[in-house]
Amino acid sequence: MMDRKWDKVIIGIDPGTNVMGYGLIGVRGKQPSMIAMGVIRLSKFESHYLRLARIYERVLGLVEEFLPDEMAIEAPFFGKNVQSMLKLGRAQGVAMAAALSRQVPITEYEPRKIKMAITGNGAASKEQVREMLRRMLSIPTEDLIPELDSTDALAAALCHFYESQRPAVAKSTSWKDFIARHPDKLV
Amino acid sequence: MMDRKWDKVIIGIDPGTNVMGYGLIGVRGKQPSMIAMGVIRLSKFESHYLRLARIYERVLGLVEEFLPDEMAIEAPFFGKNVQSMLKLGRAQGVAMAAALSRQVPITEYEPRKIKMAITGNGAASKEQVREMLRRMLSIPTEDLIPELDSTDALAAALCHFYESQRPAVAKSTSWKDFIARHPDKLV
Repeated sequence: MMDRKWDKVIIGIDPGTNVMGYGLIGVRGKQPSMIAMGVIRLSKFESHYLRLARIYERVLGLVEEFLPDEMAIEAPFFGKNVQSMLKLGRAQGVAMAAALSRQVPITEYEPRKIKMAITGNGAASKEQVREMLRRMLSIPTEDLIPELDSTDALAAALCHFYESQRPAVAKSTSWKDFIARHPDKLV
Repeated sequence: MMDRKWDKVIIGIDPGTNVMGYGLIGVRGKQPSMIAMGVIRLSKFESHYLRLARIYERVLGLVEEFLPDEMAIEAPFFGKNVQSMLKLGRAQGVAMAAALSRQVPITEYEPRKIKMAITGNGAASKEQVREMLRRMLSIPTEDLIPELDSTDALAAALCHFYESQRPAVAKSTSWKDFIARHPDKLV
């Protein structure tokens, strides 16, 4: 049995078909800290299926290593075209399956909402998001990797933490809240 | 250890966000037979995540019960809009993850290609596809359920069987073939 030093662990995912970012936040009391962050590089895999298999394996590995209580996923609601949205949906789907297979509830956030939560500006750049995270979570500069997908994913996790601190709102899109409100829907 | 009466088992999946069809074909020698077919009904689940969780659980259950060697998935390449394609991509992604988690290679087929393989007409109706399958696989009428998603999924599996009987083609989109050609890409 793992000795849990955190009251809650949140995994943030920024899904993509070339690079997938991840970031984990641990919460003790009301204080969030960065546990881990990084990227899953996919461009070396020529086949779409090998990429999906890699996403599934790596996200499942993170879920099993860090035992997150919740997953926050950055999910744009619009894309360039139906082709890219289908591919993005598949990448999101396999990452979600890794969480669902371990009963980790998922909440998704629009990129704009995440940027607003972290920087106060929904149109902030990825660099601004990273800089704010670095300061808010006191991340050593040497822990930052060049890929901004990693800080985007960490931002999703931190955004989810802030949302969970807010008083309950009338309408929530969270899976956990949905289950709490509809226990009869559980099978 | 399961006593395998089949040389090869193929699972066909027709993913959807309201109903997901599945069909399993067993091959002995060069003779395909229907092993099982049915649908996963999703419309009773209000939440998108509960639907995805259900797809993952049920497809994984089928994979563990029937131990398919390969998965064939019906995958339209175009859809009404980016929203519906994202949702479809997620449904495909969780179904694929169930296969990938058990090292089952996946091949996808356009609906038109499947209809062509079964009926000789790429624009055939779902009813025509069902009728042809009923005759070709000698399916008892009482085994047919109203939802045509089940026969569509079975058609994907049978289409894949026919494709695997054909002489190797220069360029294949199959994951298994890709691995065979690029053993260095395996991790």
